Amino acid sequence: MIQVEEALSIIAENSTNMPIQKIAVSKALGYVLAETVYSPINMPPFRQSAMDGYAFIHSERHQYDIVGISQAGDHSNLKLNPNETVRIFTGAFVPDNADTVIMQEHVMANDKSILITIMPEQFANVRSKGEQIQKEEVVFEANTLITPAAIGFLACLGITEIEVYKKPKVTILVTGNELVEPGKKLSKGKIYESNSVMLEAALQTIGIKKTKVYKVKDSLKATKKALKSILKKSDIILVSGGISVGDYDFVKEALLENGVEELFYKINQKPGKPMFFGSKNETLVFALPGNPASSLTNFYIYVYPAIKNRMGFSDTHLPKLVRKLNTSFTNTTGKTLFLKALYDETNVTILESQSSAMLNTFAIANSLLIVPYDTENLKKGELVTLLPID
Amino acid sequence: MIQVEEALSIIAENSTNMPIQKIAVSKALGYVLAETVYSPINMPPFRQSAMDGYAFIHSERHQYDIVGISQAGDHSNLKLNPNETVRIFTGAFVPDNADTVIMQEHVMANDKSILITIMPEQFANVRSKGEQIQKEEVVFEANTLITPAAIGFLACLGITEIEVYKKPKVTILVTGNELVEPGKKLSKGKIYESNSVMLEAALQTIGIKKTKVYKVKDSLKATKKALKSILKKSDIILVSGGISVGDYDFVKEALLENGVEELFYKINQKPGKPMFFGSKNETLVFALPGNPASSLTNFYIYVYPAIKNRMGFSDTHLPKLVRKLNTSFTNTTGKTLFLKALYDETNVTILESQSSAMLNTFAIANSLLIVPYDTENLKKGELVTLLPID
Repeated sequence: MIQVEEALSIIAENSTNMPIQKIAVSKALGYVLAETVYSPINMPPFRQSAMDGYAFIHSERHQYDIVGISQAGDHSNLKLNPNETVRIFTGAFVPDNADTVIMQEHVMANDKSILITIMPEQFANVRSKGEQIQKEEVVFEANTLITPAAIGFLACLGITEIEVYKKPKVTILVTGNELVEPGKKLSKGKIYESNSVMLEAALQTIGIKKTKVYKVKDSLKATKKALKSILKKSDIILVSGGISVGDYDFVKEALLENGVEELFYKINQKPGKPMFFGSKNETLVFALPGNPASSLTNFYIYVYPAIKNRMGFSDTHLPKLVRKLNTSFTNTTGKTLFLKALYDETNVTILESQSSAMLNTFAIANSLLIVPYDTENLKKGELVTLLPID
Repeated sequence: MIQVEEALSIIAENSTNMPIQKIAVSKALGYVLAETVYSPINMPPFRQSAMDGYAFIHSERHQYDIVGISQAGDHSNLKLNPNETVRIFTGAFVPDNADTVIMQEHVMANDKSILITIMPEQFANVRSKGEQIQKEEVVFEANTLITPAAIGFLACLGITEIEVYKKPKVTILVTGNELVEPGKKLSKGKIYESNSVMLEAALQTIGIKKTKVYKVKDSLKATKKALKSILKKSDIILVSGGISVGDYDFVKEALLENGVEELFYKINQKPGKPMFFGSKNETLVFALPGNPASSLTNFYIYVYPAIKNRMGFSDTHLPKLVRKLNTSFTNTTGKTLFLKALYDETNVTILESQSSAMLNTFAIANSLLIVPYDTENLKKGELVTLLPID
């Protein structure tokens, strides 16, 4: 049995980057760049007006004759005389020999001329060519996460394709004779199978949209056979159930017989102690506990950073928050606890029911509060660390 | 011109709930419940063992004969005598007249009998029927957001369908003669059109996966015609560009002529001042500024809560964070500022370039720091409010 931090290190060490793929910028939300991107153009590509107003050659003069117009999209490069001005709009081309734009609120105008009422500084309201980024300059370094703003920035530079790390193919294998599909009749001694839809949804929250789900009965033969085929086509495998210490748990044996190397089994934590982590080639295998809340806890704590690691994220953990604890708490287990909790801007409250079997507390929690195994007492008002899961 | 808070109130008042639809639980991630859900079963549905161990009738006795086995999924209801025990596994059915389960680590056992080494309390390790939720009890109130844990909880109760608020159909209408598709050649005076892919991506982050995008030239006729058809089939319309004070901005006119009621135009803020908000029947229209960073700012500040409102969220704003400001800052504009900023666990740094035209700062920011219009000076170390956008 190992400690949480050690388990996280072993997972990180064994999570290799996924292969690289080209992808359309418009489809790249949530992917991570696998290349440094350079700008193919100057941005702005020409001197641009930052205002609706009038372009002119800055001087002491206050009155100018209107000799033309420059709308966004135009390119009429009028040569201005010192007494002339061009009506201009935000984003439009500034004629080459104009150096200043006066905003329209600071002139009096008729159809033919303007009178400047508040004189701007020379060069005011003109965005110079390449002011934001120059051609060949770095747009984004490798390992940048593609956000909506990043997509907008790449698109405004005319970039349509980028190289990113592929998303891992994740397969879920559910074991358990006691499990019945929701919607079917629940016969005696059975429970509804809920971990697969829960894990699929959790995967969706980090952009893994398609997950294959397989279900097998509790037998070594069936589990072994299913794993053999799944191992070939998956980058990450989540096995749900069949990993606790009971005599009827075949999963570990089926994994080892399929050539999966055991990297650890059991973590000194609650909930979620019985977890197997192993690998075969680049494929990672997490055999998660069958209890729904334990399963989801270990997903957030272990699977989530592994997926982010494989996708090329530079920061692979859930962001940690620090909050003031609303109550005192005693940890006599000697285990690291992950407690379902509700935080607000300043405080965090530990929720009442912490059972590993059920999810109702998890469904109203917005965080997991971490109590380290070697912390016995948390005082009311003490600062504690939590992982937000909302 | 109105203040930010007033704009937010007007938007909230005019954002009606979307119609209700039935949806499969497995597809419901990110939707909001439109009904109160009651449990169709007791959970657990029977008395369950919480451990791998042995079920028995609690007494002073330490030695018991093994007379059977109860695996997960079984329903062999053995009637035990006081000196008898049943081998049992986590989640398995506890025979009706057994009252206690001893964990296997606390016995010495052979094939035929066990000797208890550490006697548990009576009723230990037995989950009673309906302990987590009783039949007909409330599972979730209306307006609960469907998270992975909520999906798991609904599924484990055998619930396959729920009623949720539909997601709004969002249409983006891009205007501007200056705009060229990324990938094409950039002729003089033109820039690449990037707002549509950026807004599509921003919509994806709140679960709006399919967005229709239309592009029109800067003409009243074209804009009017496009809006007429879009208004019929959209719940929310985002118009990008064509809303600033320039003579060549037709959008407002085209909206009004299509019967869209103006609810406000222009907000006392920077960036993002020139924004039109209106409605026709239940459809909301946001005419966003064409500058990419202004457009994305107003998306997060205004469109985001409107979508959440329509989807039935009870809390519709971006979660606000409070952080310590790393530098001093002076606001002489009299406007509410939304500054691209980077926060960590305790501090926030205002990023250097705050131009409304470009997105490079936005792409590395993880938050918008709010400086209210009536705040002139922020001191270093002062607590400030920000909206996380990561």
